[in-house]
Amino acid sequence: MTSRAVCQQHGNTTTWIACQPPDAVVYPQSTGDVQQIIRICRCRGVPIIPFGTGTSFEGSVNAPFGGISIDFKDMNKVVAVHAEDFDCVVEEGVTRNQLNEHLRDRGLFFCVDPGADASLGGMASTRASGTTTVRYGTMKDNVLAMNVVLASGEIMSTSRRARKSSAGYDFTRLIVGAEGTLGVIIELTLKLHGIPEAVSVGVCQFPSIAAACDAAIAGIQAGISFARIELLDEVQVRACNKDAKLGLPETPMLLLEFHGTDTSVKEQSERFGEVAGEYTTSRFEWANHPDERSRLWKARHHVFWANKSFMPGADVIVTDVCVPISRLAECVTETKGDIERTGLVAPIVGHVGDGNFHCCVLVTPSDVGALKRAEGFVERLVGRALAMEGTCTGKHAVGQGKMSYLEPEFGEATVNAMREVKRALDPLWLMNPGKVL
Amino acid sequence: MTSRAVCQQHGNTTTWIACQPPDAVVYPQSTGDVQQIIRICRCRGVPIIPFGTGTSFEGSVNAPFGGISIDFKDMNKVVAVHAEDFDCVVEEGVTRNQLNEHLRDRGLFFCVDPGADASLGGMASTRASGTTTVRYGTMKDNVLAMNVVLASGEIMSTSRRARKSSAGYDFTRLIVGAEGTLGVIIELTLKLHGIPEAVSVGVCQFPSIAAACDAAIAGIQAGISFARIELLDEVQVRACNKDAKLGLPETPMLLLEFHGTDTSVKEQSERFGEVAGEYTTSRFEWANHPDERSRLWKARHHVFWANKSFMPGADVIVTDVCVPISRLAECVTETKGDIERTGLVAPIVGHVGDGNFHCCVLVTPSDVGALKRAEGFVERLVGRALAMEGTCTGKHAVGQGKMSYLEPEFGEATVNAMREVKRALDPLWLMNPGKVL
Repeated sequence: MTSRAVCQQHGNTTTWIACQPPDAVVYPQSTGDVQQIIRICRCRGVPIIPFGTGTSFEGSVNAPFGGISIDFKDMNKVVAVHAEDFDCVVEEGVTRNQLNEHLRDRGLFFCVDPGADASLGGMASTRASGTTTVRYGTMKDNVLAMNVVLASGEIMSTSRRARKSSAGYDFTRLIVGAEGTLGVIIELTLKLHGIPEAVSVGVCQFPSIAAACDAAIAGIQAGISFARIELLDEVQVRACNKDAKLGLPETPMLLLEFHGTDTSVKEQSERFGEVAGEYTTSRFEWANHPDERSRLWKARHHVFWANKSFMPGADVIVTDVCVPISRLAECVTETKGDIERTGLVAPIVGHVGDGNFHCCVLVTPSDVGALKRAEGFVERLVGRALAMEGTCTGKHAVGQGKMSYLEPEFGEATVNAMREVKRALDPLWLMNPGKVL
Repeated sequence: MTSRAVCQQHGNTTTWIACQPPDAVVYPQSTGDVQQIIRICRCRGVPIIPFGTGTSFEGSVNAPFGGISIDFKDMNKVVAVHAEDFDCVVEEGVTRNQLNEHLRDRGLFFCVDPGADASLGGMASTRASGTTTVRYGTMKDNVLAMNVVLASGEIMSTSRRARKSSAGYDFTRLIVGAEGTLGVIIELTLKLHGIPEAVSVGVCQFPSIAAACDAAIAGIQAGISFARIELLDEVQVRACNKDAKLGLPETPMLLLEFHGTDTSVKEQSERFGEVAGEYTTSRFEWANHPDERSRLWKARHHVFWANKSFMPGADVIVTDVCVPISRLAECVTETKGDIERTGLVAPIVGHVGDGNFHCCVLVTPSDVGALKRAEGFVERLVGRALAMEGTCTGKHAVGQGKMSYLEPEFGEATVNAMREVKRALDPLWLMNPGKVL
């Protein structure tokens, strides 16, 4: 397809970065198709941009040098479920909700849950994580193996289905997070987990964002086993209330979930209630009904759209950083001060168990001054995180938006080594060029 | 040092592979020393072999092309413990027992426990794992970041202290398991865990090795949270009895550990008792006294030496494979049949929660026929694991001993890509040459 609308749609969806459409979009039906596309592109020096669902935030699917967008929507088969081994094999284009629908009656689930219903190939490419990462890990921890089409057109199998291996270089982890710059993922073997016997969900309000962070940190340090521990600042709660009619008190809040047996879930949540009591006078409240639980988590996963409608007509500049948890309260508090001083509207929502939080800066596209202020804010936010031994992105990846922070984060020697590895696997620099490096 | 004895000792310790001593051994005191050594070696084309404690099984510290062995015994400082972030920073030469001694009064521990008291740099290099991997993961999961001296002499920082990141290529995981062939690790940031509130240890005998495997698999599938689940076959139990005077019934056995709160440990272990009851008439017995617990686990960690003394004068050919757990009972049973048919003595001990098991083949060095039979046995064992979607090594790494299995395991395209990456980071091929690739 080369129609203007289709190309436009493949350069830009949820990102604030200007759209750079590809020259054409192709829809492979098989591994053989992907190999053929890549071989043709290689002969003609045409850039290759893999496309899952286009829900990335940092311009990962843009085509700054033109080229072919490979849309994997038709490669969406669940190839195999090995229930006895807690793993499955899926094609690149299967989305996380599609997989979880498929798994539900087997008593299994796939754990990584970024907000969007992203493709699993895309989630691997950006090293995605989500609300359950505090318990189950990121994509790095949940991809067992992949088949990847290399720049040569050959297929690389990164690993085997065994749970662990000491054989050879860990190319699974090299491809996870490489954002399509080293090869194109076509198939993934993923770890699965048993749906927990018991789940409990609770909310707890705090007098300040620092108190909420400190309660989360104290809970982790007390060894409490959280399945999810999400922070929403009062602005975010207000946006969610408005969008989903939650009727929550508009103060900083933690939204928590525990997984286990009836006994262990009860024990863990009671313990957290005790810990939280040191930081707030609000009671820790349980959502006992499954409908209420799913309403709360749906609202949480929907924050991007809630924020978009919070300031009608606004663009959302979504950014994220991650710091060691001991620095989290300080980093979030300073960031909130910065938002106020800069005169921006920017709800904060965070996976505080990992030290990771997002700011969704709302900017009216015509307000050039606000856009400039937002850019300055993001730059200071990254600087603050790096100064606290953190990273410029905990889960959104580098794409185009954070390329300039790679060297401040890693140093010149490391970034040069990354370039050498890129050149080794993609000598013509055709795999998603203009991203990461 | 260039004395014959010292060089000899740095080529060979616990491996059955013939010793190939380096030309000299150096003992750096600082990062600067390591950089200088590597720069000198690079100018003169001299191979560089990093040496931790020399406890690897596959010839990783041999010097097939001569060169300099860099012994890290003097770089053994615990640089920092960040208790509030559950991490620490250590120099390459710190051993796991040294670190755990250091951490004990902070209520923290480092979880990866291969049998030997290996250096943490060596453990990262071989992507080591151990008895607790079923719960806490391998070195891949427990190294947050590293400083690595590259072949150029420059220092590469692979990541930050934040718990997760989506920034750049995952060079932490590229270096973990690279066996010193891409650079020399000098410093590691490691994840720590809280010492569990409650620990329970139990043993359970089974009528056959298949029944023991099946009970382990059923326990995992029932969602029981094991901290350790180790299989010993009757030959291994006999060797441990002889060595450590354990007085255990000489039948296949599982040795288990649960970590958690008093309540959760009780619940999990009772559940396993029920599951195990389907596979054996033996009772699941608890080691309630800490002394008894530590005696059992000491014996388990000591199997290499127990096996060595089981057949006086014998060499121990230690090998390991890992398969998806659904294939474990079949793989272990076929392997035991092979041992019997081949007329070898080879105790089996396994981390069955991961699908990983070891065979310790005992061979009198003068018995050339037995050595040949042992080599044939290892080859068939690897072939069997690969045919079951497994790997040629779950935790011992490739070294020299398993290089020929890399292509059967990964395929030509992947191994070629590994070679390209090696060439990109080590163009003169001086970093631990003759290993892995």
